[in-house]
Amino acid sequence: MRKVCVVVTARPSYSRIKSALTAIRDSADLELHLLIGASALLTRFGDTKEHIRKDGFSIEAEVHFILEGETPTTAAKSTGLGIIELATLFSNLQPDVVVSVADRFETIATAIAASYTNIPVAHVQGGEVTGSIDEKVRHAVTKLADLHLVSNQSAADRVIKMGEEPKTVHVTGCPSIDLAAEIAKSPKLDFNPFEKYGGVGADFDLDSPYVIVMQHPITTEYGQAQKQITVTLEAVSELGIPTLWFWPNVDPGSDEAAKAIRLFRENNPDQDFIRFFRSMSPEDFLRVLINSKGIIGNSSVAIRESSFLGVPAVNIGSRQHGRERGPNVIDVPHDKNRILAAIQKQFATGSITGVPIYGDGRAGHRIAHVLADAELAIEKTITY
Amino acid sequence: MRKVCVVVTARPSYSRIKSALTAIRDSADLELHLLIGASALLTRFGDTKEHIRKDGFSIEAEVHFILEGETPTTAAKSTGLGIIELATLFSNLQPDVVVSVADRFETIATAIAASYTNIPVAHVQGGEVTGSIDEKVRHAVTKLADLHLVSNQSAADRVIKMGEEPKTVHVTGCPSIDLAAEIAKSPKLDFNPFEKYGGVGADFDLDSPYVIVMQHPITTEYGQAQKQITVTLEAVSELGIPTLWFWPNVDPGSDEAAKAIRLFRENNPDQDFIRFFRSMSPEDFLRVLINSKGIIGNSSVAIRESSFLGVPAVNIGSRQHGRERGPNVIDVPHDKNRILAAIQKQFATGSITGVPIYGDGRAGHRIAHVLADAELAIEKTITY
Amino acid sequence: MRKVCVVVTARPSYSRIKSALTAIRDSADLELHLLIGASALLTRFGDTKEHIRKDGFSIEAEVHFILEGETPTTAAKSTGLGIIELATLFSNLQPDVVVSVADRFETIATAIAASYTNIPVAHVQGGEVTGSIDEKVRHAVTKLADLHLVSNQSAADRVIKMGEEPKTVHVTGCPSIDLAAEIAKSPKLDFNPFEKYGGVGADFDLDSPYVIVMQHPITTEYGQAQKQITVTLEAVSELGIPTLWFWPNVDPGSDEAAKAIRLFRENNPDQDFIRFFRSMSPEDFLRVLINSKGIIGNSSVAIRESSFLGVPAVNIGSRQHGRERGPNVIDVPHDKNRILAAIQKQFATGSITGVPIYGDGRAGHRIAHVLADAELAIEKTITY
Amino acid sequence: MRKVCVVVTARPSYSRIKSALTAIRDSADLELHLLIGASALLTRFGDTKEHIRKDGFSIEAEVHFILEGETPTTAAKSTGLGIIELATLFSNLQPDVVVSVADRFETIATAIAASYTNIPVAHVQGGEVTGSIDEKVRHAVTKLADLHLVSNQSAADRVIKMGEEPKTVHVTGCPSIDLAAEIAKSPKLDFNPFEKYGGVGADFDLDSPYVIVMQHPITTEYGQAQKQITVTLEAVSELGIPTLWFWPNVDPGSDEAAKAIRLFRENNPDQDFIRFFRSMSPEDFLRVLINSKGIIGNSSVAIRESSFLGVPAVNIGSRQHGRERGPNVIDVPHDKNRILAAIQKQFATGSITGVPIYGDGRAGHRIAHVLADAELAIEKTITY
Repeated sequence: MRKVCVVVTARPSYSRIKSALTAIRDSADLELHLLIGASALLTRFGDTKEHIRKDGFSIEAEVHFILEGETPTTAAKSTGLGIIELATLFSNLQPDVVVSVADRFETIATAIAASYTNIPVAHVQGGEVTGSIDEKVRHAVTKLADLHLVSNQSAADRVIKMGEEPKTVHVTGCPSIDLAAEIAKSPKLDFNPFEKYGGVGADFDLDSPYVIVMQHPITTEYGQAQKQITVTLEAVSELGIPTLWFWPNVDPGSDEAAKAIRLFRENNPDQDFIRFFRSMSPEDFLRVLINSKGIIGNSSVAIRESSFLGVPAVNIGSRQHGRERGPNVIDVPHDKNRILAAIQKQFATGSITGVPIYGDGRAGHRIAHVLADAELAIEKTITY
Repeated sequence: MRKVCVVVTARPSYSRIKSALTAIRDSADLELHLLIGASALLTRFGDTKEHIRKDGFSIEAEVHFILEGETPTTAAKSTGLGIIELATLFSNLQPDVVVSVADRFETIATAIAASYTNIPVAHVQGGEVTGSIDEKVRHAVTKLADLHLVSNQSAADRVIKMGEEPKTVHVTGCPSIDLAAEIAKSPKLDFNPFEKYGGVGADFDLDSPYVIVMQHPITTEYGQAQKQITVTLEAVSELGIPTLWFWPNVDPGSDEAAKAIRLFRENNPDQDFIRFFRSMSPEDFLRVLINSKGIIGNSSVAIRESSFLGVPAVNIGSRQHGRERGPNVIDVPHDKNRILAAIQKQFATGSITGVPIYGDGRAGHRIAHVLADAELAIEKTITY
Repeated sequence: MRKVCVVVTARPSYSRIKSALTAIRDSADLELHLLIGASALLTRFGDTKEHIRKDGFSIEAEVHFILEGETPTTAAKSTGLGIIELATLFSNLQPDVVVSVADRFETIATAIAASYTNIPVAHVQGGEVTGSIDEKVRHAVTKLADLHLVSNQSAADRVIKMGEEPKTVHVTGCPSIDLAAEIAKSPKLDFNPFEKYGGVGADFDLDSPYVIVMQHPITTEYGQAQKQITVTLEAVSELGIPTLWFWPNVDPGSDEAAKAIRLFRENNPDQDFIRFFRSMSPEDFLRVLINSKGIIGNSSVAIRESSFLGVPAVNIGSRQHGRERGPNVIDVPHDKNRILAAIQKQFATGSITGVPIYGDGRAGHRIAHVLADAELAIEKTITY
Repeated sequence: MRKVCVVVTARPSYSRIKSALTAIRDSADLELHLLIGASALLTRFGDTKEHIRKDGFSIEAEVHFILEGETPTTAAKSTGLGIIELATLFSNLQPDVVVSVADRFETIATAIAASYTNIPVAHVQGGEVTGSIDEKVRHAVTKLADLHLVSNQSAADRVIKMGEEPKTVHVTGCPSIDLAAEIAKSPKLDFNPFEKYGGVGADFDLDSPYVIVMQHPITTEYGQAQKQITVTLEAVSELGIPTLWFWPNVDPGSDEAAKAIRLFRENNPDQDFIRFFRSMSPEDFLRVLINSKGIIGNSSVAIRESSFLGVPAVNIGSRQHGRERGPNVIDVPHDKNRILAAIQKQFATGSITGVPIYGDGRAGHRIAHVLADAELAIEKTITY
């Protein structure tokens, strides 16, 4: 039985990998070892640890490695500390394979810790294209990884073009789509977010049309987050319809992003249409998303899950640059009028037909099968 | 004037980059900031710091980040600690570009610390092919780097195939060849290594033919180093001609490699043909190399510098797997008889005509020019 | 000329040491090297770095070492990371003496980094008594320190009783009193805190009587911070007079403390008497303090500066347990009614005659003199 | 049942605590959780891990945290890294008490990690007096510790004088004496060290009289280790009788110490009376000690175990300065003639009557009882 170690490091990475965790846990050939770290342990990002426990997973160890500051320097140092801590955990645990998800600093920390301790690395969500530092990190992780579990054929092609052996590349779909597919089966908004998650700001009725905003700072545009968020706040203010706004991830610039929101709230104490939330469970979030008029910002959710679900999306700025997208997405720069025009155009159409760009809802099982069956090796050579 | 930060982390990486350091220091457009760390600070690897000072470079800061143990776990943890320390140094120094050399854990630590602190990374020696963990790390660094200063056209082609913008890829040649080219102009062995560097073991006359051995442990074959070194020791013993043997790098398995040597010395207290050295200055080492019958082991020197110099080489095992090589090299597995046969065959021919596979001796200047002139950016997108 | 290195790690530690920094900088015998780190770099605690720059000090290096989380585990890990980073900085800088202030995790990180790098440690504020982990850490730092710059004779006696050589113990007074003494000379409230520092919450007139609250979580009572803060919030609510409330330090439990404040604000959106501030410059804070009716909470300011200034204080809970105090202080447990009764009793009396328990306002100069003149050694032996 | 966590970090600390480990493991009221780290994982110090396993203890986790370099800077950084790693392990394990032994950097790392994670610290070997940085660290650990398990009454008195509550101070004796007492019952040298442990250097007959040397570098006299060791080597050479010489601990200066030995060996290839050993099992070492003429150097073994066993000892330099000693010890400075004179005088007398200064051989059981019965608290206040 293979020991599979998965490191969950944040609210979004848990949502992305949850169906695979379930499939790994339930596989007769695999033994799941779950480590929780980084912002998954920070209560200001919502209690991810609690969500995980409620979902019935047992947690092998917890490990803090986020440096406070949300600057480029602290992101680098968090990466370093993550490697140190994970190397100790991996070498005590001796898993047969370590799974690393996406393109964040925790992802490369996991990949480096595993690579140098001679443990095979399986990378989920490789081969995609975006902007910012994530673009560099994702492809660097591909070059460290031994097994590639990608979302779609174009990602597979890209991984192979980068010189990886085709036999190590598996189109499994992205497990984040699995959850979306499941929720889409009975998408009724069966809870009151205000009661269940609190949040701060306006109080309103979710039976009326509402929009979602999720906008993260961009590492490589550090110093501009406050302005970028402010532009979006101004656009949304002018729009004036009920809005659920989610706090940004812990990334360089989050502090500035938070400052923009804080200032907005102080200067607009009587605004009655924006509610700010820290996080929700993945399921609840998807339910809220499906029932919305659309999503605004620069989250990958607007591109990935929303393309599958057919949720209209206005994507702002460079963060998702180059990522394959469906007809639900319209791209705009950080410009109030362009954002407003895009919202008006895109959200008027109502629901859009979903397209399975990032998977068909069965990625979790495919990932578990590959982890159980694939040859696991740590030696590789570029193919050209 | 651009601030160029170079991190020298080991005896071999100093040799490899020295001519570029000189050209950067002497450039009117560049300001050299030199950091010394990792095994360059460890006296058991020879006093690299002292060599650097004698060469007239001023050292901005020293930083220890090698975990003791020479296991896969400690290599991972050294990487993490290197990132933490370098991130602090880079963010206090704020260089315009950071230069990272080759494919070691210090190389990726440097690249990650610079990437996340939004400082452009120039990578020297990218696009080559070898075995072991180095193969993964080298290409991962390519995907993090913004500027590629490669040894030859096939390396350039490989970097471009990996999805890098052609305009960021510069064939400069490898600066390690510069020093070789310079020494080759007057290669006389003008010093006595026994007097200048001590070493332990046999004492003999360097006017007679002698060979050089340099064999490192292989991270991804951790646990086999002692046996691998022992095989080579046995082959060399059977050969029985004067041998200068250099200690391995600080890598997972070095401890085992050292153990093999120690046991050999204890069991052969009277052997009169092998002398063990910790290190020499880059110049002195090249002089010794040129005047030898040939080099045995798995050092890249046997492939890179020796191809240029035409020094016969017997390369053992997987470490240099896939690296482009000249007619001076013959490859063998870890097998005493095969090693002996190769030595007999290869070293009999005498000197071989050198080929400029890794450069023509003018890489340092080209690197300085690229660093002075190239556009420096931190945003990039894969080209496909 | 002696190189004196001081590490400023937080808003309060800067206030406490500022007059000494000035005296060291202005001394002909000393050379000040100022390092800034930990929460002094975090903007959510107010821009300490900016205050320092405005005061004309030049900053040698900045170093992030706070782990996010504000749990006991992250406090421990921040200590470890601080030692690693400071050891590198100290060994590159090679100061003649390192000054470490008070009893926080940054204090012992500084003392350990300096002790093991064989640099003499001068400890300010040793020999005092409080509760919580600070009590352990303060005395541990005394045992690591080579020079003791204490606030008063009873602190000196305690340090000597712990086995320190009397000749290494100097009663300098606490430099935090220096600033208080200076501001007390012309204590007019010459600025509007609302305009200058923003803050959130109620808006009111500072010409009417107001109180100050400053209450930190207690490491060794981790898990109780939210309840403890809530009790004080309830007492202050019942009091209902204008209140300037300052956010807690970055300590285990800060997150819970913040949660209590956030919940209070959400449940009392219309409260019109509490304003929450992140921080002020040391001078502005003291001015606000002097002009208040009194201070409530568990800050050392209520005991130290306020005893000198004669500001009435209600000290809640165990954090200042055992610290020498003046007649301005009344102690109460975490009990709403007891807090209210104490406020009523203590704040009615108006100003109280100040007593120089912690210094006479000239500590900075004395500290500079001791640092210039004292014998600096790293060997010591317990005196019994 | 209380969870007792013990961190074994080195060959000597394992010997010192072994009888307590056994008693804890065998106690019905205690559950032993053993962590192995630092130089206990480094094979060049002998395979401590293997000794531990052979003794039947199960190891909960292994953690590397020694920075290579053996300089003051690396000692500081190892302390910091130790705290980081141990904090993660402690907070995942949540023991009821952590045991920390003696006065090394690993000791204070353990104490700080436990203190800040709110876990009570039991300190073994507090209250003693020595020289060097150990003197500072030992007393600092006393001020962090909640329970003091000391060797003798004078150590207890000293701990109480430092302001610790008398009820937290227990005279248990030092567990290192337990092993000595047990071996002393049948002290026959029943193995051949040359066969069992190898070693390098001369070969001789242990039936003839022989001496033992164990000399460590002194942190606070960094830079003098090579000279200090050389003086002892010269004295021993002049003596010219069979000598078992043990390698130094991993401490700042070990590298220099090793250099002195290496140079001696190179310059004296034909010496036929000194054999160098890395380490032995605690039992074997004690057997070798008891059967020797005496011990030379600065190890605490010469003072502690040897006082009990009545083995003549010549103690050189400041390292054991102030430590309580029996009539078996004679103190000398780093001076060849003084060392020789002392050896001649002291070793001539033959065996000396042992005195139980550091315990009577039953410390392990007493320690287990205290850990099972004592009140465990994390709050304390200095008693004056």
